[in-house]
Amino acid sequence: MTRIDGHTYLIGLMAYPIRHSMSPTMHNTAFEALNLNFVYLAFDVPAEKLKDGVAAIRTLDMRGSNVSMPNKQVIIPYLDKLDISAELNQAVNTVVNDNGVLTGYTTDGVGFVTDLKKKGHEVAGKKMVLIGAGGAGTPIATQSALDGLSEIRIFNRHDGRFDHAQETVDIINEKTNCQASLTDLADQAALKEALAWADIFCDATGVGMKPLEDQSLVEDPTWFKKDLVVYDTVYAPRETKLMTIAKNAGVDHVYNGLGMMIEQGAAAFKLWTGQDMPIDLVQAAIEEKDQQ
Amino acid sequence: MTRIDGHTYLIGLMAYPIRHSMSPTMHNTAFEALNLNFVYLAFDVPAEKLKDGVAAIRTLDMRGSNVSMPNKQVIIPYLDKLDISAELNQAVNTVVNDNGVLTGYTTDGVGFVTDLKKKGHEVAGKKMVLIGAGGAGTPIATQSALDGLSEIRIFNRHDGRFDHAQETVDIINEKTNCQASLTDLADQAALKEALAWADIFCDATGVGMKPLEDQSLVEDPTWFKKDLVVYDTVYAPRETKLMTIAKNAGVDHVYNGLGMMIEQGAAAFKLWTGQDMPIDLVQAAIEEKDQQ
Repeated sequence: MTRIDGHTYLIGLMAYPIRHSMSPTMHNTAFEALNLNFVYLAFDVPAEKLKDGVAAIRTLDMRGSNVSMPNKQVIIPYLDKLDISAELNQAVNTVVNDNGVLTGYTTDGVGFVTDLKKKGHEVAGKKMVLIGAGGAGTPIATQSALDGLSEIRIFNRHDGRFDHAQETVDIINEKTNCQASLTDLADQAALKEALAWADIFCDATGVGMKPLEDQSLVEDPTWFKKDLVVYDTVYAPRETKLMTIAKNAGVDHVYNGLGMMIEQGAAAFKLWTGQDMPIDLVQAAIEEKDQQ
Repeated sequence: MTRIDGHTYLIGLMAYPIRHSMSPTMHNTAFEALNLNFVYLAFDVPAEKLKDGVAAIRTLDMRGSNVSMPNKQVIIPYLDKLDISAELNQAVNTVVNDNGVLTGYTTDGVGFVTDLKKKGHEVAGKKMVLIGAGGAGTPIATQSALDGLSEIRIFNRHDGRFDHAQETVDIINEKTNCQASLTDLADQAALKEALAWADIFCDATGVGMKPLEDQSLVEDPTWFKKDLVVYDTVYAPRETKLMTIAKNAGVDHVYNGLGMMIEQGAAAFKLWTGQDMPIDLVQAAIEEKDQQ
């Protein structure tokens, strides 16, 4: 007999395109393991249909939803409240429906900090270089700052997102004790100098992800010192070109973004269910699914 | 690892109240057994929210939905097309979404006729007495007429539904070869005479269902002849007072509505998936769930 019955509540993932997502495997594996009466489904919802998607959360009394590209900013006016995590980023990846009141959260930043912590690295008191202040980079910057990072140097291309990156820097300087600055990524001398200065380096641009797996924003292995923590938010492939270069340079702590992806899900899971996600089980299920 | 992934499509059940329904157990058991990538969930959707519920079918690209009380008539203006089964009843219990085109069907009548057939009783050429021309009775009458029933005598209380019952009688006389008539249920002599005349007797009123399980619309066992087929659309309890009286009167073929409920689901399942529902497995799952 199926575990799903009339009392099962729906949780969604609204993005476009999204049917390839690993999140349904992650959450449903955890619901089944903990015997929680929820089902998590992905729905292709482009930005122009998102207003109706949020209406569906209310109509179907869904427990909540994740949202991803291109909906993370678009969703804000349709919600009732924003948590501080979403407020600082002006972006939402998780919606919680409490009896018809929809609150937006961003759990990506918590996912990054939690994953680093489980790997033995606290952000408190540390110095970080971050490339990219988009959908992944912004919450990484703000959450790390909230959690006590002492200084962050953000590098971003001088493109349409540069002003947004500057806003993030301003918010961090204004609202937290972390000292933030922004540099054009084209200033490679500054990037080299920053890598020598930093404790933690995070590439949150998506460069190195399939089908651009032959690219890396740092090509010269001598720019990496051995005790730098190197974190790439990409997890497909599991080892990016950046990671290979860092490993070949002798860096001890080099990580992909799989842990961050799982931990952002675990943080959302906790918001919806009040329970801790069984991380090991979920990771095994994702690896198994990935090989299909 | 869970079977549910990013490619799983949602099918709903929109009614109010509905969280107690067995339909999610039925359909999800069948999806799992046949390895079909769907999930079926119940949603409490009262009539005033049904327009938004139908919008959710489109927004979330759901494969379809069942609807039940109080939504079976209310839904009609929100759909794009009606199948003949829904047209004759002016009621819908199943919606199929074909690339954004929503078609309404009624599978309750097919459920009744199919269940009777599997139990060895064809309606073609037979005479039927039916009490009740509401949500269950109307499709039983029209589908039986479409499938070759020669004559039907419908009995209904002279209440607000009596005119609707007359419309059903008129439609049957106009659109099928079956001869239909309507009598006030208060005319007990006529009911007694009709039961002596009929091959099949169906009570589609819901009298005898919990918490009214001590009631029966036929109290006198002498009104039942031994070779009458007696069918009660109620299935909770599994044996209604009417059924007990008929059995005690020596009637050989006395049935509750569980088979009809499962077969209407199987007909909807076929519309959504193109596959035959594994009836025995589904029935076992329902009995197991029912004992929890």
